[in-house]
Amino acid sequence: MSLSDLDIDFYESEDPVWNPALLTIPVPGIRKMVNLAANLKDVIHLSIGQPDLPAPEHVVEASVEALRAGQTGYTMDAGLPELLEALAEYYGERCDRTLVPENILVTTGATEAIYLALTAVSGPGREFLVTDPAFMLYAPLIRMNGGEVRFLPTRAENGHQLDPDEVIDAFTPNTHAIVLNSPNNPTGAVYPRRALEAIVEEAAYRGIYVISDEVYDHLVYDGVEYASVLSCCSDLDHVMVVSSFSKTFSLAGMRVGWLIASQGAIKKLRRYHMFTTTVANTPGQWAGVAALRGERRFVEDMVKVYQRRRDRLMELVDATPHLTCYKPQGAFYLFPSLPDGVTGSNVALRLLRETGVCTIGGDTFGEHCSNALRISYATSIDNLEKAFERIVPWMEKQDFD
Amino acid sequence: MSLSDLDIDFYESEDPVWNPALLTIPVPGIRKMVNLAANLKDVIHLSIGQPDLPAPEHVVEASVEALRAGQTGYTMDAGLPELLEALAEYYGERCDRTLVPENILVTTGATEAIYLALTAVSGPGREFLVTDPAFMLYAPLIRMNGGEVRFLPTRAENGHQLDPDEVIDAFTPNTHAIVLNSPNNPTGAVYPRRALEAIVEEAAYRGIYVISDEVYDHLVYDGVEYASVLSCCSDLDHVMVVSSFSKTFSLAGMRVGWLIASQGAIKKLRRYHMFTTTVANTPGQWAGVAALRGERRFVEDMVKVYQRRRDRLMELVDATPHLTCYKPQGAFYLFPSLPDGVTGSNVALRLLRETGVCTIGGDTFGEHCSNALRISYATSIDNLEKAFERIVPWMEKQDFD
Repeated sequence: MSLSDLDIDFYESEDPVWNPALLTIPVPGIRKMVNLAANLKDVIHLSIGQPDLPAPEHVVEASVEALRAGQTGYTMDAGLPELLEALAEYYGERCDRTLVPENILVTTGATEAIYLALTAVSGPGREFLVTDPAFMLYAPLIRMNGGEVRFLPTRAENGHQLDPDEVIDAFTPNTHAIVLNSPNNPTGAVYPRRALEAIVEEAAYRGIYVISDEVYDHLVYDGVEYASVLSCCSDLDHVMVVSSFSKTFSLAGMRVGWLIASQGAIKKLRRYHMFTTTVANTPGQWAGVAALRGERRFVEDMVKVYQRRRDRLMELVDATPHLTCYKPQGAFYLFPSLPDGVTGSNVALRLLRETGVCTIGGDTFGEHCSNALRISYATSIDNLEKAFERIVPWMEKQDFD
Repeated sequence: MSLSDLDIDFYESEDPVWNPALLTIPVPGIRKMVNLAANLKDVIHLSIGQPDLPAPEHVVEASVEALRAGQTGYTMDAGLPELLEALAEYYGERCDRTLVPENILVTTGATEAIYLALTAVSGPGREFLVTDPAFMLYAPLIRMNGGEVRFLPTRAENGHQLDPDEVIDAFTPNTHAIVLNSPNNPTGAVYPRRALEAIVEEAAYRGIYVISDEVYDHLVYDGVEYASVLSCCSDLDHVMVVSSFSKTFSLAGMRVGWLIASQGAIKKLRRYHMFTTTVANTPGQWAGVAALRGERRFVEDMVKVYQRRRDRLMELVDATPHLTCYKPQGAFYLFPSLPDGVTGSNVALRLLRETGVCTIGGDTFGEHCSNALRISYATSIDNLEKAFERIVPWMEKQDFD
């Protein structure tokens, strides 16, 4: 190796003012596609990670009322007491366990909750298990604080399910935490209760933290039961559960999420949260109270809409050359495979340029499913059909051998 | 020293799951007082860090309109384009320089902006200059990422002004950044343009980053000119300026702030911001557009209200035994001194327990002004007068020698 092979440029071009920890943050693959799409005409977005349905009116009106009642000051740092109470009751009923407001921290969306959880428990030399593919937030936050990421590949052949035996085999004495995400982004997989219970129980036994991102917890289809990690553990000592109003109530822009954990953990995270954002926004928290206390037909109707879209999208993908798909039962993504060896983001890029359909390559979400495309159905059936009128003839012309 | 002198308990009692970096976060002094006050009856709060005035109606209504128009989804990660444009124009005019939207990142309040700025440039062995006293956010965020804090004491005798020669003398080859905060929390000091220009110019020359927290930038009295660091630098290569709508428009609970820097720095911080909170809340950002684009009489009226309160509070403090005060020209705090050697938080604690008046001890904000009390005038003159009807007789009974 000659000196010129060294990637000196990389280090020299990096402005030395920055904390080297920021090098763990990748150039965001989704952002790249969306930015490119912004410069093209007549793009159909199958790349969207937020609901397209309007938020329920009574929820929005609760924010309006709060604003007009002068609710523009800070709430308590842990969150609006009314929201903490509502969340404790709601999860208590749903997961059949007793929770108190002191088990909960309200955050700026699920993102801040994940940020706090991962950066607060990561540290040099600590090993974290993360599925591959996975939402691209987890690994950089772990690495940023010195933690090591060990990937657990999931496979299209079995619908990207987690095999609990494989997970438990992967635990080492150095394993500090495991990150779970069911329903999963990007795969749509919903983990059954049995699998979760086995993993959580073994993790508790070994003192391994389970950090569960459950933002898609209400987007579950085919009447499948949803098992929250909160309903799979005997106590909360080694569990942090994250969710938000974003996907369930079409409120992504309201930026209200939460973290549920032991009272001791919440006490610690509250202090950290004061330093990251101080507190979540007040009108959004009032919307959250209305969402939990009000009537929930919105959610049932929404699930039906997404399920119909998923079914139609499955048909469209099945009729498309070179794409193979399993049937995911949650979230609003399909994650079909291209032939082996094909790189998803290259296909996504050409597809966008040549047909104006924006999807995301599987390699954005990890290393083991590069040959996949993430297709979002947070868009109308009409849009899905129009998109595949472009995709099918384009795929017919491809020769991926 | 025997083995039992070692603080083993500290290490053993600390749950090993946590990132040791969190040890840099102190038990929050203000929170302790406010929590204690919550259990007492008939408390008068002179401890408040947010405006008590109602937010302007047209600003609140802009949020209402946005909500009703379905603006509950994400904006662009850097912020709502309309808000970025409005901020660029507003600062462009105010600071007589050309800014583009790409110089700005909208954040979850100024807190997230400060969090991003400090954690993104801190790193092991880097030295940061921070005034003492200072808002208690800065030092932990610097230390959390390995940076070292070097305190620059400011003194009550000269109104807690920064002497630019002293600052420049404190620069070392290892100085990485300086944190400025004018108007200052807790001292109310407003730094004159001359002093800021001298510091910023020398910092630029030496490649030292200037991080300027300007959240109180409109709360300036006696017709004093406000000098933003943005109006004191020739280019933005070594400058980050943070502010928000919280104090200027009584919108602390809306959680919308921003960071202004070079386009390159913003590009880097945008990526980081995606991982901390994704994006600021959408209805709050629309409120911000209305605040900047709408009429500003609210701000002028507010400044008059705060100035009258400050003047009355000065009189009350002057008439109180054991308290000595200079005249601060900004923010909404007085920071009078108790006799030398008296610890402010001990006095504040006894004052709260024995009279029901809640103030904050100077030692919450650093080491060099332990013998001070922070008294907030984000409350009515009536409340200030009632509080001093309790404080004066209590102080008369004290013997601090």
